[in-house]
Amino acid sequence: MEKIKIGIVGYGNLGRGVQYAAQQNDDMEVVAVFTRRDPADVATVLPVKVERYEDMKNYIGKIDVMILCGGSATDLPKQSAEVVKMFNIVDSFDTHAKVPEHFAALEKAAKETGHLGGMSIGWDPGLFSLARIIFGASLPEGSTYTFWGRGVSQGHSDAIRRIAGVKDARQYTVPVESALERVRRGENPVLTTREKHTRECYVVAEEGADLKRIEREIKEMPNYFADYDTTVHFISEEELQKNHSGIPHGGLVLRSGRSAAGNQFLMEFSLRLDSNPEFTSSVLVAYARAVYRMHAEGKTGAVTVFDIAPKYLCPMSEEEQRKELL
Amino acid sequence: MEKIKIGIVGYGNLGRGVQYAAQQNDDMEVVAVFTRRDPADVATVLPVKVERYEDMKNYIGKIDVMILCGGSATDLPKQSAEVVKMFNIVDSFDTHAKVPEHFAALEKAAKETGHLGGMSIGWDPGLFSLARIIFGASLPEGSTYTFWGRGVSQGHSDAIRRIAGVKDARQYTVPVESALERVRRGENPVLTTREKHTRECYVVAEEGADLKRIEREIKEMPNYFADYDTTVHFISEEELQKNHSGIPHGGLVLRSGRSAAGNQFLMEFSLRLDSNPEFTSSVLVAYARAVYRMHAEGKTGAVTVFDIAPKYLCPMSEEEQRKELL
Repeated sequence: MEKIKIGIVGYGNLGRGVQYAAQQNDDMEVVAVFTRRDPADVATVLPVKVERYEDMKNYIGKIDVMILCGGSATDLPKQSAEVVKMFNIVDSFDTHAKVPEHFAALEKAAKETGHLGGMSIGWDPGLFSLARIIFGASLPEGSTYTFWGRGVSQGHSDAIRRIAGVKDARQYTVPVESALERVRRGENPVLTTREKHTRECYVVAEEGADLKRIEREIKEMPNYFADYDTTVHFISEEELQKNHSGIPHGGLVLRSGRSAAGNQFLMEFSLRLDSNPEFTSSVLVAYARAVYRMHAEGKTGAVTVFDIAPKYLCPMSEEEQRKELL
Repeated sequence: MEKIKIGIVGYGNLGRGVQYAAQQNDDMEVVAVFTRRDPADVATVLPVKVERYEDMKNYIGKIDVMILCGGSATDLPKQSAEVVKMFNIVDSFDTHAKVPEHFAALEKAAKETGHLGGMSIGWDPGLFSLARIIFGASLPEGSTYTFWGRGVSQGHSDAIRRIAGVKDARQYTVPVESALERVRRGENPVLTTREKHTRECYVVAEEGADLKRIEREIKEMPNYFADYDTTVHFISEEELQKNHSGIPHGGLVLRSGRSAAGNQFLMEFSLRLDSNPEFTSSVLVAYARAVYRMHAEGKTGAVTVFDIAPKYLCPMSEEEQRKELL
């Protein structure tokens, strides 16, 4: 069997995850990693060629799908439309407000050059989006809820680290169990930000730092913490390393609704992930297969998880899928 | 807006459910119900024209999608391929062993006449199949589990009713909580039939019937009960009516897996349904929309949930979908 040839653009947690995930798929092989750093400085978790970002063009025709593993703030808005001019791509773009703009740019560049670009792939956006659209279509009268956690929010952890006197920090987003229970009971509650999630912070302070001030600055930080019930725990550096070095995450999508006859229904999708980037990577790899296959059928432009029939994700033949999975 | 014109073939619990569900979708209207009974004998839950099955041909060009609401044992194997010669259809065919055969017959009849037929739509097969294929593709190394219940199994209830001395009965299939917990803990256990589900029977016996014999006959019934831990409760007819007249069901699909780096993941999809047929109907209606749209784009033949991109299920425009749901 001819393998699907994958390239990895950017080699942080996500890039490493893609390399691991590709190894679990017999129909895939990673041809090269592309980096804006000096390739000599990039130590990969499995053996693979590391190339300069600029040298990507030398791989035209040798790579079927590029998996973009950069960040949504500055990398992907530039790279997705740039790389799709040479290759099919998938990315994990997750800046919700800028989705229309990202889609338009990707669509234009991909259409012009005859490639296919899958965007906003992962678990949220991604699998959670699938749950939202399928649940909503299945139960037109009802309410959909998304809860995140228990898991590490990188953005919130970084925000704490920027406070004077903080050496390191880890922030967990935690769904409020009583809110979840109200949804599951079919109450269809209107929930405020505070009612849905709490924030747990584990902070390593510098020696002699004013802990009361740090705690206050965290709890009062607008956008990040002020609208939540936040707890702050000061711990040692060793404890942070020992108990909080992972990047777990997860969450739930629920829809509660009723039929015109008055019967009640609850749909629920949940994820519990020991490693957020490794799971996102695994989903990216499955969608790289889909993009490869759809492009082979002549599809070009930009697509999201909404546009991709599930059959394209699965390595089995369609006959096997119906026999084994239907 | 031009509405999608729906026909309902067969008017039992599922047909009634489709009528209710169509009412919750502004872009749909039910044009007529088709029955093999005398139309005068069919009382519909909402006003609608009732026609003879044979008169369906008079509606060619007046109905966009026929929703087939017959049973998988004898109705659908005949009707799906027959009706798809005149109309696009969706059905809820659920005889797993005969899926390849049903698909082949539907594909042939639909292709020859330029229609599209969606088969095996509902929650299992249907949404649970989606979970199995998406979960498997997302975590190539792992195990998938399907649990059913707590819910009424019509087939098992009927089997009890056929025992001499039994006036009425209701059987609940119940997932074994400890098995579920083992899966959730990531043990990836190999579970026997007995370890996955128990069976709870509520039986109304005829006056003077030998209860010990009835209980023994239930518990020893091959295929239906012999491989399960079964409990039998004898209750009064009033109690059956009062506490067991609904048709609830539900269940879970779980996948537990790990990354090549050793991190653990759990994916879980569950349904809790007060009415099994009304939920199945609601899913059928969403997929009728998809079949209508895909046929309008030129697609013909047979399809399952695996072949249908989620965007087709949702009444929103693609722009709205990306903005609201991604």
